[in-house]
Amino acid sequence: MIQRLSREQQLIQDIFAPLAADNPGAFGLHDDAALLTCDLDTDLVITKDALVEDVHFYADDPPDLIARKALRVNLSDLAAKGAEPRHYLLSLALSERCDRTWIEKFAEGLAQDQAAYGCQLMGGDTVSSRGSISMSITAIGTVPKGEMKRRHGAQAGHLIYVSGTVGDSLLGLKVRGGELFHGPSTASDRAFLADRYLLPQPRVDFVPAIRRHASAAMDVSDGLVGDLELLCAASGMSGEVDLTQVAFSPAARSILEGGLTTLEELVTGGDDYELLFTVPPNSVYAMEGAARRLSAPISRIGRVISGSDAPSFFGEDGALMTFEKPSYSHLD
Amino acid sequence: MIQRLSREQQLIQDIFAPLAADNPGAFGLHDDAALLTCDLDTDLVITKDALVEDVHFYADDPPDLIARKALRVNLSDLAAKGAEPRHYLLSLALSERCDRTWIEKFAEGLAQDQAAYGCQLMGGDTVSSRGSISMSITAIGTVPKGEMKRRHGAQAGHLIYVSGTVGDSLLGLKVRGGELFHGPSTASDRAFLADRYLLPQPRVDFVPAIRRHASAAMDVSDGLVGDLELLCAASGMSGEVDLTQVAFSPAARSILEGGLTTLEELVTGGDDYELLFTVPPNSVYAMEGAARRLSAPISRIGRVISGSDAPSFFGEDGALMTFEKPSYSHLD
Repeated sequence: MIQRLSREQQLIQDIFAPLAADNPGAFGLHDDAALLTCDLDTDLVITKDALVEDVHFYADDPPDLIARKALRVNLSDLAAKGAEPRHYLLSLALSERCDRTWIEKFAEGLAQDQAAYGCQLMGGDTVSSRGSISMSITAIGTVPKGEMKRRHGAQAGHLIYVSGTVGDSLLGLKVRGGELFHGPSTASDRAFLADRYLLPQPRVDFVPAIRRHASAAMDVSDGLVGDLELLCAASGMSGEVDLTQVAFSPAARSILEGGLTTLEELVTGGDDYELLFTVPPNSVYAMEGAARRLSAPISRIGRVISGSDAPSFFGEDGALMTFEKPSYSHLD
Repeated sequence: MIQRLSREQQLIQDIFAPLAADNPGAFGLHDDAALLTCDLDTDLVITKDALVEDVHFYADDPPDLIARKALRVNLSDLAAKGAEPRHYLLSLALSERCDRTWIEKFAEGLAQDQAAYGCQLMGGDTVSSRGSISMSITAIGTVPKGEMKRRHGAQAGHLIYVSGTVGDSLLGLKVRGGELFHGPSTASDRAFLADRYLLPQPRVDFVPAIRRHASAAMDVSDGLVGDLELLCAASGMSGEVDLTQVAFSPAARSILEGGLTTLEELVTGGDDYELLFTVPPNSVYAMEGAARRLSAPISRIGRVISGSDAPSFFGEDGALMTFEKPSYSHLD
C-alpha cells in the first residue's frame, strides 16, 4: 500500500532497517519491540553504555567512528564476560548538526562493525535533541549455559593479566584536545594515540580463551588500578601487582620517558577497553598459548593473594605506589 | 575489605543498586554486564526508548516523574506486545544541575514504578553530560512462547479499538509551555492535562486481554492516525475509522469545544501511550468484558477492511478527513 511515513520513520526504514535485515527478531524495525528467543543451552548477557558529546566524543569526530565506539565499548563488556556478541539496540538523540549524510555515515560505521563482530541491530529509537548528541547501545551476547565469566572467582595464587597496552586512549584524548604536540611524540605516535581514543579495539577474539581459562574477568574502562581493585574486592581477595610489567605502546612509552605523562596517569586513566583477568596456575600455559595464536599480547602483571586489603601496586625499583584517584569517574 | 569507590561507583551502589537488589541476574550492579536466563516456555520481548531534556521533559520537571516517564514509555511498548515487564537497564547522562538530591529523587520514582509494575533494574550506566540531561531505558518483558503480539494480524472485519483517551498529553505539553491558560479550561483541567503529559499510564493491566483477544496491537505514541496507518500497513489491510467514537477526556473536550484545539490535532499528536488494537468479531464480547473488569475504558472506533489504501478517517457528520501530518515526528 501507499504508506505515508514521517521523516523519522523514513530515516529508520532507509538507513537503520538494513542493519536489522538479517535479524528475524527485529521485524525490520517495523514493530514496537523486538523478540529475543532463547534456547536451553544458552544464557544471554546484556550490557548498556551511553556516549555523550563532549564527554566521550566530539561533535566533529567522524560519525562512523562515533558509532563504532558506541558499539565497541559494549562489545568490550560482553567479551569480558565471555559472551559472543549477537544483537544490539540503539537509542540515538540527534542534534541539528546531524544531517542525513551524518546519519548515513553513522550507520555505515555500525554496518562495518556488525560485519566485523557478527552482531545485528535489533531495535531502539531515534529522537531529536535541542542540545548535544547522545546515544546509548544495549548489547546482547550469548554464553553456553552457566558459563558467563564474572568479576569474582579469583583465588589466591591465580595470576593477573591485562591484554594489550594501557593508557593510550587517555593520551589520545589529550592529543585530540591539542596537547602533546610538542616534545617527544612524533606525528605517527599522535595519530596512533588519537586512533586508540577514537576507536577502541574490544577483545572479542579473546572470548573463547576467557571462557575456558580465566577465573575472573572484567574490562578495563575506568583505569587499570581502580578496575583491579574492583575485581579483587568482588573476589574477596587482595593482590600484588608489578606495574612495570604492564605493556605500554611505543608511543605511550616515548611520552612517558619524555616526562609528559606518568606511570600513575597511564594506569588510572579510562577508556582502555582491554581485558583484565585472572588465570589459575595450571591454565597459564594454555592461556598464554591462546593469546599467542591470536597474536594478541597479554601481560602477566601480578598475582592474587589472600587478604582483605586493596591490592598493592609496585612501580620502578619495586617501590610501593599509592593512588589518590585509582579510577576515572564521571562524577568527580 | 576497605574499598575505595569513585563518586560515580558510590552513587551507583548507594542509590541504584537497591533497585536491583531482588534481581539475581543484576549481580548488585557490581559486574560489567547482567545475566538474562531463559526458559523454554517463554520468549523475551525487548524495547528501548530515549528521553531528552527540552524534548520529552523539562529540566525542572520533578526528577521522580522524569524517571517514571522514562520507564513507562517502555512499559507501554511491552504492554502493546502482550509482554509482562520484568527487567530494565538505565543509561543516565547527568548534567551539572543533577545533584545528589536530584538523583535520589529520580531513583525514588523508579522504585515506586518498579513496585507498581513488577519489574527490576538490571544494569546500565551513569555518565556526566556537559549539556542537557538525557536517558534511555531498555525494558525486557516476557510472553509465553510464540505469543508476542504483533502489529500485523489484523484481518478484514476485525474491530479497531483504542484504550483510554487521546490527545491529553499533547494539550498537557501546551499547558506546561504556558498555553491554554485562558479560555475554556479550568485549573483542574489544566492540572489533569499536565499530569497526563508528565506521567503516562501504560496499560500494563491490559496485557492478558491483549494476548488473549487482540489480533494486532501497538501503542499510540506518535498520534492515533499515523499509528493506525502503520498497523493497517503492517497487516496488509485498510480500515474505516469514525473519529467521533474516539474518547476524549472532559478536559480535552472542553478545550476542543472552546475552539482552542481541533479534532485533527488531538488524533495526530504524540505521547498518548494508549493501546491501539484490533479484535476479531467473535472476541469482541470477551475483550469488552475484560476492559470493564479492569475499569479501563476502551473505544471501538472502526473496523479493518481489505484493501491497500490507507485507512479512511471520518469526522463530524461523517465527513472524510485528510491529514497532512498523521504523526508526530522527531525529525520533521
